[in-house]
Amino acid sequence: MTKTRLTRPKKLKQGDAVGVVAPAGPVDPEHLEKGLRVIRGMGFQPVLGESVTARNGFLAGTDADRARDLMAMFEDPEIKGIFCARGGYGVNRVLPLLKPKIIQANPKAVVGSSDITLLLLYLMQKCSLIGFHGPMVAGSFGCRPMTLSKTQFRKTLTGTPGTGTLTAPHARVLRPGKARGKLTGGCLTLLCRSLRTPYEIQTDGHLLVIEDVNEPAYRIDGMLWQLKTAGKFKNVQGIVFGEMVQCSAGPNGTGRLDDVFLDALQDTSFPILTHCPVGHGNEMWTLPWGVEAVLNTESRSLEIKGRALA
Amino acid sequence: MTKTRLTRPKKLKQGDAVGVVAPAGPVDPEHLEKGLRVIRGMGFQPVLGESVTARNGFLAGTDADRARDLMAMFEDPEIKGIFCARGGYGVNRVLPLLKPKIIQANPKAVVGSSDITLLLLYLMQKCSLIGFHGPMVAGSFGCRPMTLSKTQFRKTLTGTPGTGTLTAPHARVLRPGKARGKLTGGCLTLLCRSLRTPYEIQTDGHLLVIEDVNEPAYRIDGMLWQLKTAGKFKNVQGIVFGEMVQCSAGPNGTGRLDDVFLDALQDTSFPILTHCPVGHGNEMWTLPWGVEAVLNTESRSLEIKGRALA
Repeated sequence: MTKTRLTRPKKLKQGDAVGVVAPAGPVDPEHLEKGLRVIRGMGFQPVLGESVTARNGFLAGTDADRARDLMAMFEDPEIKGIFCARGGYGVNRVLPLLKPKIIQANPKAVVGSSDITLLLLYLMQKCSLIGFHGPMVAGSFGCRPMTLSKTQFRKTLTGTPGTGTLTAPHARVLRPGKARGKLTGGCLTLLCRSLRTPYEIQTDGHLLVIEDVNEPAYRIDGMLWQLKTAGKFKNVQGIVFGEMVQCSAGPNGTGRLDDVFLDALQDTSFPILTHCPVGHGNEMWTLPWGVEAVLNTESRSLEIKGRALA
Repeated sequence: MTKTRLTRPKKLKQGDAVGVVAPAGPVDPEHLEKGLRVIRGMGFQPVLGESVTARNGFLAGTDADRARDLMAMFEDPEIKGIFCARGGYGVNRVLPLLKPKIIQANPKAVVGSSDITLLLLYLMQKCSLIGFHGPMVAGSFGCRPMTLSKTQFRKTLTGTPGTGTLTAPHARVLRPGKARGKLTGGCLTLLCRSLRTPYEIQTDGHLLVIEDVNEPAYRIDGMLWQLKTAGKFKNVQGIVFGEMVQCSAGPNGTGRLDDVFLDALQDTSFPILTHCPVGHGNEMWTLPWGVEAVLNTESRSLEIKGRALA
């Protein structure tokens, strides 16, 4: 259980400058351009980190460059929020180079998903800061429709009233019920990758959000079993699964994912909703990690109860 | 550090009956037939577990079936050793169903690799039993040349004198030196999958053997970083990397693996040998986990110092 009270970053306003950083993999320039137009269309002024367009093998620049970019955005008082350009791989390599005290002194809304999962966990565990699991500039807005998601992203980050209830009409009820807890989670691969690290996911009392992409069913099974064996489902209040894009293809990936989920969660009784717009699909919720929410499978909704922004 | 003194299973003899089990994925019948001929050619009499040819999605039968097969081989006094048919996925699901006391009362040489990594760690940690990381009946002998490996497998498991020194003429010295420690390790994906479980890999004072197959370089990087962040390289004596078959292909997997290794291990000073015949290649050492060995990069050798069998 997260014992420390988490810090709420400040609401964004129309016209605010926002930092765009790439703490993980290299960014496609076309996707970035398209994504920046979307961000500008929302009324924000994107400011690029120096290494956003760098490429160092499977990384967007050296670890030092990516860490410097991220810290520069926290340190610059003109920058009001920090949007990640894409995931990929490499946030883990940046975390040891960040400065938690500077981050704590300059709390800002950080948004990202996929590999950024580890950054959001780090911000909660090491900086007591609420982060946002949501679309990314190049990796989401720059290459997927994200129609409804754009509006919800903007409204959520500007603290527009009346945006607290998110519904997923196409979601499937795997186990009915209503549950309340703080939101946490992210990409399943990265949740497992957090185990035995200083930013290991804390799930007690939480509503857990889980998504992944391009993993055969047997790997999803293995990851859920690891979390289960590690006791991570024991005191969970409910689980929201994302769209799990391309997660059962391939000759070794046979098996319905719903069966995989129910099997791994058979010792639990909390509500489970699947196929929610979280992760690598065409639409994606922007969700505040560490903030109280209510999962209601009957209305296929997630109602944000706590305040995410100051 | 493994504090308990590990139990040595008994040497196998020509003519001994050996159990063949499939605790993980479904087995290709042709590979199995071919592998059984190899095992018979060594002078052993293979006895098949009931579910060896079963298929239950990505598993070789139900968890209960696979666990029952494995326990039956430990319980049957006629069975002198236990050879795994193949890896794949699913050992993790069988472990909670095993009976450590029965295993401890009937110590037998268990041989396997890949997904079987978790079974060998379980045998060491929960049953204080030395296990053998080595070729599998269908998954190795049944589908790969394994010329030298057959002889070394047979000699090692029958305790033939003079088989203690294994050399790898084609191995590459990534960092020179000589080191002594107990052997442990296995498939990197599974080593990470063991974290925060009751059979989590213990590396203190050990020589760590690491291999994997079909993982892009960025995933190898992420897994090594997780082990590093978990402190698993801190008190390691030396590392032996296997052949890492198909581990840098793909557009996102760019980057020389040697660079990935050296980078993740930059805070260490122990000797590192790569490209050793361990894992998913055409030849494969049979190595006793939990037994003292000396790694010598000059002679590209691993000398087994302790006794593995009673």
